[in-house]
Amino acid sequence: MQQIWLFLLSVLCLCLVFFCSAEEGLEFPNFDGKDRVLDINERNYKKALKRYDLLCLFYHEPVPANKGLQKRFQMTELVLELTAQVLENKDIAKKLGITKSFSHYYNASAVYIGLEEVGSLYVFKDDRVIEFDGELSSDTLVEFLLDVLEDPVEMINNAMELRAFERMEEDIRLIGYFKGEDSHYKAFQEASERFQPYIKFFATFDKSVAKHLSLKMNEVNFYEPFMEEPVILPGRPLSEMDIVEFVNQHRRATLRKLRAENMFETWEDDMDGIHIVAFAEEEDPDGYEFLEILKDVARDNTNNPELSIVWIDPDDFPLLTTYWEKTFKLDLFRPQIGVVNVTDADSVWLDMSNDEDLPTAEELEDWIEDVLSGRVNTEDDDESADNQENPDDYVTEDTDESHDPDDDDDDYSDD
Amino acid sequence: MQQIWLFLLSVLCLCLVFFCSAEEGLEFPNFDGKDRVLDINERNYKKALKRYDLLCLFYHEPVPANKGLQKRFQMTELVLELTAQVLENKDIAKKLGITKSFSHYYNASAVYIGLEEVGSLYVFKDDRVIEFDGELSSDTLVEFLLDVLEDPVEMINNAMELRAFERMEEDIRLIGYFKGEDSHYKAFQEASERFQPYIKFFATFDKSVAKHLSLKMNEVNFYEPFMEEPVILPGRPLSEMDIVEFVNQHRRATLRKLRAENMFETWEDDMDGIHIVAFAEEEDPDGYEFLEILKDVARDNTNNPELSIVWIDPDDFPLLTTYWEKTFKLDLFRPQIGVVNVTDADSVWLDMSNDEDLPTAEELEDWIEDVLSGRVNTEDDDESADNQENPDDYVTEDTDESHDPDDDDDDYSDD
Repeated sequence: MQQIWLFLLSVLCLCLVFFCSAEEGLEFPNFDGKDRVLDINERNYKKALKRYDLLCLFYHEPVPANKGLQKRFQMTELVLELTAQVLENKDIAKKLGITKSFSHYYNASAVYIGLEEVGSLYVFKDDRVIEFDGELSSDTLVEFLLDVLEDPVEMINNAMELRAFERMEEDIRLIGYFKGEDSHYKAFQEASERFQPYIKFFATFDKSVAKHLSLKMNEVNFYEPFMEEPVILPGRPLSEMDIVEFVNQHRRATLRKLRAENMFETWEDDMDGIHIVAFAEEEDPDGYEFLEILKDVARDNTNNPELSIVWIDPDDFPLLTTYWEKTFKLDLFRPQIGVVNVTDADSVWLDMSNDEDLPTAEELEDWIEDVLSGRVNTEDDDESADNQENPDDYVTEDTDESHDPDDDDDDYSDD
Repeated sequence: MQQIWLFLLSVLCLCLVFFCSAEEGLEFPNFDGKDRVLDINERNYKKALKRYDLLCLFYHEPVPANKGLQKRFQMTELVLELTAQVLENKDIAKKLGITKSFSHYYNASAVYIGLEEVGSLYVFKDDRVIEFDGELSSDTLVEFLLDVLEDPVEMINNAMELRAFERMEEDIRLIGYFKGEDSHYKAFQEASERFQPYIKFFATFDKSVAKHLSLKMNEVNFYEPFMEEPVILPGRPLSEMDIVEFVNQHRRATLRKLRAENMFETWEDDMDGIHIVAFAEEEDPDGYEFLEILKDVARDNTNNPELSIVWIDPDDFPLLTTYWEKTFKLDLFRPQIGVVNVTDADSVWLDMSNDEDLPTAEELEDWIEDVLSGRVNTEDDDESADNQENPDDYVTEDTDESHDPDDDDDDYSDD
């Protein structure tokens, strides 16, 4: 009897632990222990694809024998279960299935339905396969799935929506002006589905909205992130393929923000094995100013297809900050810009240790020119880096040898 | 032999699973299986408090026998372990200890060192105890701990930092002008430590910064969130207690944003058992406009101590959105404002189903007046709510009976 009481007491106490607040209206979801994630195998995958408008599938290797790796796998399973639990309401559950499948069971059909990478998460919508290439956490995944459930084209009907459209400077956006839901609009819509939810498509049937944006009938504009002026897609009306090809050619922006929802995709899209990476905390005074300078540089160089700067706001990635500080030997409380070799994470960073001034846009452009021409690179300094006794210290790597001796390198060496 | 190969293969494959990207520089941290969180008991707590500048302690009940609850507890443990792993670098690890303690072991000393609530997380810094009352996830906790490690007073030395200060409209901020690190500044600093990291304290020793902010020597200004003009703290120079008392009196802002880092604290700070809650997605056109109207209302009513509106941006809480939609029977794709009873989560919401227009600031003020006078409340409609056949449907609760019959209630009933 006493044991039962003790048990009930401990259950009660733990309930209090997890619902810290005695008040109602703010109960943070904890996994309730109910399994909702379906196991997909050779026998049931066709049925599952048919049943749901959206099928989310984690394609994985069999569960390992090693305990540490099992723990990790369980964490991934919990992320999927919590996502399924949170999205379990009548409206969504009918449309969305969350599943996982051992690669073993799936080999035969994997190629057919478009699975390529074991360990990836795929979303099936209509005839398309969308790879989720972001942080595998419940909140990122929930947002991603809700985005995919929405219409791929958002309508702009009034001045309020137009102002909202103009505020989205961090995103790649396309907007088209059409007479109505005719074949030209349909082509635009078909194109949008191929990029959902990563690239945003807008349309208007409204003359005054079109006039404000200087859009002609059946014209489509492409807004690169942080650019004030759009690029007009050549030709009109445009076919689906015209639009798809244009977007594929222009989607690597001159300045692009790293986001949790597609961070791995962005990182894999390197420039011949390197990334130019800028760390800037938008809420920090230096970070904000540095970002403004970066935007100026991007606007000046928007026509240079060689240049793409990945902007990382450390505030968006609290779990990665110390990893980056260690890997790149940086202090991320200050803005930083550097070149990262993606095959070995070797890197060189512009010296901005002088507290007084951030570099001007011109100085930054000179440095970027040196990077693109190879004068600043991650290889030349390896010898001195190897000699460092304590590679974990927060020091900018010595970049002296990476400069052309004819250059005035006082601006960015850390001698 | 074959078994070993299979094991190695599965280890290798799982490594691929968890480090999705073959490229370096973006490895998302997974728990490495190493235990770093210390168990604190009667014997070692004094030593631990002495050893670390900052001690983070999760104060919990013994682990339960029930399997589901065990799983939840393990998730909390994983959050702590991942936090400790991520913050494990030479600089921080010396200063920060992350620990957990069974309430059983701790009863004797708990009162003495200021622990009150089982299931809470406390941070010990110098002689103070700070309760963490936010979302128990690694990223929120890492950010919180890094904030607590910083100096509680931030200096504003130049125009750039001043601009950043002026951009922080969502935060409660205090700023003082002092000659230097004299006794008046010290009093300000001591006060700041009592509110770190929830309320931001700034100081300047610079004449031109002070002039720009119209600050006299030894004067302290208090900025309420979203207000353009600050309130001047009465009297100068001010003692620590003057400042502490003023902040305690004024910290419940007319419009306050719900944040992951102190969401439960905000929710517990209700107004006689209710909250006025506004849902508005800042990135959404309607949400943005509605927020602008809310700011106007807050500015008009900043001197009303009875009024405090909790603004929730659903984008900040993807895991809670469906919970709120279900609990409050709302569609959160649109802005909403309502009254929530925190004892039973019963609620009534202003009807804004007319797609064309958001309410004007005046209409909103009329409604708020009805709420504060009790004419709109969560009790009067209970009978009709009980009669609803399907309480999970997304409908605004019938609020007709909550209005004074003399009022023109066409604006917000959903008849």
